[in-house]
Amino acid sequence: MSKYVYLFKEGDASMRNLLGGKGANLAEMSKIGLPVPQGFTVTTEACIRYYQDGRKVAPEIEEQIYSALHAVEKEAGKVFGDPENPFLVSVRSGARASMPGMMDTILNLGLNDVSVEGLANLSDNPRFAYDSYRRFIQMFADVVMEVDKELFHNALENMKANKGVTQDNELDGDDLKALVKEFKQIYFDDVGEDFPQDPKVQLMEAIKAVFRSWENPRAVYYRRMNDIPSSWGTAVNVQAMVFGNLGDDSGTGVAFTRNPATGENKIFGEYLMNAQGEDVVAGIRTPHPLDDMKEELPEIYKQFSDITEILEKHYRDMQDIEFTIERGKLYILQTRSGKRTAQSAVKIAVDLVDEGMLSEDEAVLKVDPKQLDSLLHPTFDTEALNKAILIATGLPASPGAGSGKLYFTADEAAEAGKRGEDVVLIRDETTPEDIEGMDHAKAILTARGGMTSHAAVVARGMGRPAVVGCSALRINDVAKEVRVGDKVFKQGDTVSVDGSTGKIYEGIIPSVEAKVSGDFGRLMAWADFVRRLKVRTNADTPRDTKQAVEFGAEGIGLCRTEHMFFEAERVKAVREMILSDTQEQRKAALNKILPFQQKDFEGMFKALEGKPMTVRYLDPPLHEFLPQKSMVNEIKEIADELGTTVEELNDKIDELHEFNPMMGHRGCRLSVTYPEIAEMQTRAIMQAAINVRNEEGYDIVPELMIPLIGTKAELKYVKDIVENTIKEVFKENNTEMEYHVGTMIEIPRACITADEIAEEAAFFSFGTNDLTQMGFGYSRDDAGKFLESYYSSGILEFDPFARLDFDGIGKFVEIAVELGRKTKPELKIGICGEHGGDPATVEFCHNVGLDYVSCSPFRVPIARLAAAQAAIKEKMAK
Amino acid sequence: MSKYVYLFKEGDASMRNLLGGKGANLAEMSKIGLPVPQGFTVTTEACIRYYQDGRKVAPEIEEQIYSALHAVEKEAGKVFGDPENPFLVSVRSGARASMPGMMDTILNLGLNDVSVEGLANLSDNPRFAYDSYRRFIQMFADVVMEVDKELFHNALENMKANKGVTQDNELDGDDLKALVKEFKQIYFDDVGEDFPQDPKVQLMEAIKAVFRSWENPRAVYYRRMNDIPSSWGTAVNVQAMVFGNLGDDSGTGVAFTRNPATGENKIFGEYLMNAQGEDVVAGIRTPHPLDDMKEELPEIYKQFSDITEILEKHYRDMQDIEFTIERGKLYILQTRSGKRTAQSAVKIAVDLVDEGMLSEDEAVLKVDPKQLDSLLHPTFDTEALNKAILIATGLPASPGAGSGKLYFTADEAAEAGKRGEDVVLIRDETTPEDIEGMDHAKAILTARGGMTSHAAVVARGMGRPAVVGCSALRINDVAKEVRVGDKVFKQGDTVSVDGSTGKIYEGIIPSVEAKVSGDFGRLMAWADFVRRLKVRTNADTPRDTKQAVEFGAEGIGLCRTEHMFFEAERVKAVREMILSDTQEQRKAALNKILPFQQKDFEGMFKALEGKPMTVRYLDPPLHEFLPQKSMVNEIKEIADELGTTVEELNDKIDELHEFNPMMGHRGCRLSVTYPEIAEMQTRAIMQAAINVRNEEGYDIVPELMIPLIGTKAELKYVKDIVENTIKEVFKENNTEMEYHVGTMIEIPRACITADEIAEEAAFFSFGTNDLTQMGFGYSRDDAGKFLESYYSSGILEFDPFARLDFDGIGKFVEIAVELGRKTKPELKIGICGEHGGDPATVEFCHNVGLDYVSCSPFRVPIARLAAAQAAIKEKMAK
Repeated sequence: MSKYVYLFKEGDASMRNLLGGKGANLAEMSKIGLPVPQGFTVTTEACIRYYQDGRKVAPEIEEQIYSALHAVEKEAGKVFGDPENPFLVSVRSGARASMPGMMDTILNLGLNDVSVEGLANLSDNPRFAYDSYRRFIQMFADVVMEVDKELFHNALENMKANKGVTQDNELDGDDLKALVKEFKQIYFDDVGEDFPQDPKVQLMEAIKAVFRSWENPRAVYYRRMNDIPSSWGTAVNVQAMVFGNLGDDSGTGVAFTRNPATGENKIFGEYLMNAQGEDVVAGIRTPHPLDDMKEELPEIYKQFSDITEILEKHYRDMQDIEFTIERGKLYILQTRSGKRTAQSAVKIAVDLVDEGMLSEDEAVLKVDPKQLDSLLHPTFDTEALNKAILIATGLPASPGAGSGKLYFTADEAAEAGKRGEDVVLIRDETTPEDIEGMDHAKAILTARGGMTSHAAVVARGMGRPAVVGCSALRINDVAKEVRVGDKVFKQGDTVSVDGSTGKIYEGIIPSVEAKVSGDFGRLMAWADFVRRLKVRTNADTPRDTKQAVEFGAEGIGLCRTEHMFFEAERVKAVREMILSDTQEQRKAALNKILPFQQKDFEGMFKALEGKPMTVRYLDPPLHEFLPQKSMVNEIKEIADELGTTVEELNDKIDELHEFNPMMGHRGCRLSVTYPEIAEMQTRAIMQAAINVRNEEGYDIVPELMIPLIGTKAELKYVKDIVENTIKEVFKENNTEMEYHVGTMIEIPRACITADEIAEEAAFFSFGTNDLTQMGFGYSRDDAGKFLESYYSSGILEFDPFARLDFDGIGKFVEIAVELGRKTKPELKIGICGEHGGDPATVEFCHNVGLDYVSCSPFRVPIARLAAAQAAIKEKMAK
Repeated sequence: MSKYVYLFKEGDASMRNLLGGKGANLAEMSKIGLPVPQGFTVTTEACIRYYQDGRKVAPEIEEQIYSALHAVEKEAGKVFGDPENPFLVSVRSGARASMPGMMDTILNLGLNDVSVEGLANLSDNPRFAYDSYRRFIQMFADVVMEVDKELFHNALENMKANKGVTQDNELDGDDLKALVKEFKQIYFDDVGEDFPQDPKVQLMEAIKAVFRSWENPRAVYYRRMNDIPSSWGTAVNVQAMVFGNLGDDSGTGVAFTRNPATGENKIFGEYLMNAQGEDVVAGIRTPHPLDDMKEELPEIYKQFSDITEILEKHYRDMQDIEFTIERGKLYILQTRSGKRTAQSAVKIAVDLVDEGMLSEDEAVLKVDPKQLDSLLHPTFDTEALNKAILIATGLPASPGAGSGKLYFTADEAAEAGKRGEDVVLIRDETTPEDIEGMDHAKAILTARGGMTSHAAVVARGMGRPAVVGCSALRINDVAKEVRVGDKVFKQGDTVSVDGSTGKIYEGIIPSVEAKVSGDFGRLMAWADFVRRLKVRTNADTPRDTKQAVEFGAEGIGLCRTEHMFFEAERVKAVREMILSDTQEQRKAALNKILPFQQKDFEGMFKALEGKPMTVRYLDPPLHEFLPQKSMVNEIKEIADELGTTVEELNDKIDELHEFNPMMGHRGCRLSVTYPEIAEMQTRAIMQAAINVRNEEGYDIVPELMIPLIGTKAELKYVKDIVENTIKEVFKENNTEMEYHVGTMIEIPRACITADEIAEEAAFFSFGTNDLTQMGFGYSRDDAGKFLESYYSSGILEFDPFARLDFDGIGKFVEIAVELGRKTKPELKIGICGEHGGDPATVEFCHNVGLDYVSCSPFRVPIARLAAAQAAIKEKMAK
């Protein structure tokens, strides 16, 4: 028979997966002799079994619970349900990963109509006893039976009104006794049966409720945000109650062994005498800083501060400790690694190395890569933020804080930005044509689109704060105003956008620039030393490239070239090309673009100073270069400019219209139908590479990447076009140069025929955005409409556009890596989708043997740290 | 060293893959002693090598050619290039599969300025010699050097004009000698060098030209239409020339051993004395029926008719034979299985069994399944068709012939149809709302869309002729007219549509109804006896179901339910549902649809008489049930009908708009967000099944199919909804019934996680349309724009929407079958995509172990025959 229940003294810190974080730490503290109220842990396996058994606790588990309870009773010298001296317990969740506040807790369990009297007598404090009981009824009703909390709250308020008092603690024992009676009636009316008097029934129902709380919506949401699989389940900790509210010699508090905001090596905490934890939270009285305890309770302080030192050394990390003093005796209720700011995390990790407590590898593992974002971007001043008026919340698409005047079109935003105004660009959704306006904005705001929409991807690339898919916004481009509920904001009104939280505020909120400390540099050096995976960046301007190189990028993994077609002077030529009837006309139009693109590439090669660059050929469908049919004025303007008629332009727009452009005429399909585009781009890249090599002496090996390949024949066909052009360029320049032609792997068919495709490819780069779209059949621009239902129903645990779906899309990656390397063992393989900056995905990429990840510039440090952690974990597992 | 060249006497019929069909048959005829002019075959492997070597003939192959030439010269007693008695040859292509007229041929090769004189002397016929030479120059220039044929044609016409004659044969030897001079000048002017005088150079250039012709556009197109892989290559046959134009004792002709139109067992052919094959084709003189030869040349006729008998018995099939009589001696130039009509093919196959020449299995293999289409559909009267005026050509989407008056909207088409008019519905593209108009039309015509567009799929299901994607049509819905070039057709003008060829004609062309003979029934019975794969149909009305059952369908593999939401009375309730704000409102609206759908299912179950039916849950995105935003009048009408405002309706249309609806909110995603839809459909199906079982006593086991599943959790979630509803229905009816819940496999991710999905699925049905779309990333509605370039450049050999892409999408199918059966060995697996009626795909499905294919009713016999052929081929391979 499996063991589903462990006494605290039976476990230790190594059993975290089975006992959960809280349970393992309670066991460990017991083991090293710290003053922990005794108890036991029902394991995570029991939780998993509970769900497997159709939400039932198996009899064998129930037996083990009772037997553990009995052992603890014996130790405490009290008996569960004893009318004179009742043994009371708390029931708390505790998963493998810390999920603070996400699941449910029940205190004072074991009280009933009889034992409450015993407790009153024993404590000589009827008020305390009845207050404990009414709290227990309320918590049990809420957590176990889902009775509306408001009902109890209203009863309490009525009682206070009747008594003419305003504070809870002004009610006396009799009042609370009467309130208990009322609470029990509420319970009966709502549940349809009496409040359970049998403590064992109370206990089993509470344990089941904690199991259930693993699947409550906020827990599901938290897991999704923090990459915690639902299969882990939660443990349940049943622990003897101790009371900090038994008089002036009792109290309760919380402490961090170091400062969680700054990392300073000094205990940081608060405590309150004659109180329970709940009271601290409720803010009825103001807690004291822990320093005060030195004088007030010097012995307890000494004992506590010794324990913090023991715990920090024991766990070799900053600890977050809960304690209670019951009638002069100190109890430790919980210890865990303390949550901390990014700044603090970096400082603590580095300090612990300097203090000899951690190795460098261990320090690297201590910092959550996702946190680094806030180190690199400006943030709003915390105090000002607290007072700010929230307008709406959207998706936190690109971190950082930005404020300015609203502008509704990219052109006007760009003009205002050039005039020196602080601008916030607001659009239903952005298109590649908006690029200049986005670049001049302090922040970007859209009503539609998801985390990988155009606005999100481009803003992250620029390091510009952005909130997208904010569906509460009703934007009117013509009136140049946006409605949110009853409020209206017009062009020029000021707003503040927090891209890290997705929140939008009224007015200008002052922001604080990011500061990068020396500690950060040391930590990243340790990370770089240990990692195997290279980190490149996605960039298509010299400026972004320089930024990324400063952040440690080792090259460009994805240079998207579409923006090189969109700038005002060029888009006219692109449109001429689209309207051409013959290849000759198209070539003439492309020849106008060639010098611009060549100059762009020269700038990029220079910024890279010899680091490698993978250039992707034109990818989007051509209709993106023409206005939409409804944009009557623009069409007229463009038709005039190009010397054609509105009808002809509209005909062309109709002709290019696609029902599903994501699966339409784009990527390498453009090179097949219009080889002259690929020829022009090849010429621009290779001529630029030759020129920069000649001027600067860098050793350049251009990597030319064909997107959207589905078959080997397709790659061969386009590669022939590219290589023939390269031969021409070499001949014209009377020189040669090493180069590689490779392909994006982003079409499912390409993954399962990667052995064939590798015959023609010098490298693979996974385009996991498109692979996720086509592998799942989810249009990233539309999926938002149903994915929320998928998360809330538990069908999907994570956003597959943010974290790679390892079990499905990841399998495609694995298959393609295996097949590709079977054909060509030396094949260089990377990933350049949006997932390249997600720490979990980076770990996956390390594990499946990729050579590099590529991500937007501001994510480069995150990827470096995540790559290092993956390498260290692999080393440790060996 | 490999052998690349075979003398005819070195080969036989079994070497078809190496020698091509023509070469193998020439060898075989040589072997069995028939009078065949000697020669040799350059193998298909030489052709493949030619392409591998970068379009060069390797020296070793060239040597083998000369050595074979020498052997043949010796036998003929003539020498290649001999000025007195020149040895002349023909050079002809010959692939494994017959591709008549698709590749190039050169006759009279070996002539030059000197030997033409020898030939003139030898034949005592200078006119013949110079005519042969000028023809050779013209063919060589055309085929090898791509000189414009017009140049030669004009020179010939000028010569006739100067001479004041109208017929070629009115020019004498001197005229032709002068013409040869002129032709050589044309050659020099165009090519830049003299016409080659060295017969060996002529020969090598001609062989290379035949190799090249394997990749000419019409050959590529023919292969795509006929499932012939480009990797096969073509052989080249070099054969001694014999001349049918050496006088009245010479002649040439073609004969079929049985009637290719009717199958009648009687020689059928034509011949012409003193002529070459070319003259027959040119129609200068009218050839005589072969019967005349009995009296004119009784000995030759006897000899020839004996040979036809030998050949038919030898090849056990109707033969198409070319012969030449040179100065009273009969030569057989070629024999091959004769092309024949479907009717003839069936009759010949059955007759050959009755004559003891073929086994039943062999007879089944003799009929091309694709041909059956024309047996089941009406066709235009051939004579009337020859005189008809062609308007335009589109894609032959649904076979059959239909004529009538043009109508531009489905409503008007339906009304006219109800009035008894013959109607042709013409639309830019059809939508599900057009269904009633399509049903009342004799034929359907669209300007957009591909072979699997809505119009194509629905028309095939209905057995209605349709031509789609006819891009020459410029349709104006408002003016109700269509322009094609300079012509305009208005509503009520008559046209004829040939869905088998894709051609559209002016006016009404009389058509001939399909006749199904007793022979057909016998052949299909033999097919049914041998096949393992079951054949089901895709149908969603009782009428289509009955039709399919008559065609031999063994059940319904795909009952699409979307049409059950579209009929006028129902679509209002659907729109109410879409506009609902609460689940209660949605349920109320769905309750109005429930009785209709239940009745539909009852009709289907009755029509099936106990055969199985797989019902797919609602699949299309909800926006398909609302008008497009540009349809202002309809929006007003619908808003009024539903008691809402135009603004609100427009808001909803905006809200439902998707950028890529194919990858949007559809399929099982609808059941996740709106479980009440799945509940209603489940209720309708199960209640109908129970009612029909009770009324008719059929043993019904409903198969409920969830579309668009990507993950196991998704299937589990929707299956739970379905099964909970089934439990309710059982309880209400106080009965139970066996049923199966399965899933479409059409999302790439589902294929590679099929082992997990099989845990929740009773059956798989491959939706190969969507799988092809997402696996390739090709939107079927848009891909037409670039796929033509893919075919012409050879990147794709076949339309992956018509024939499954075995190497890629087929791999997904194989992976899913393997993984699914690993979890559940008894898993029933079928295919219900449009590919289910494609013979090559049916063979693939047999080979990978599927249980059934499902296709539109009119394709059921095709699939039955194809399934039988696959089984026989498998048996034979063992």
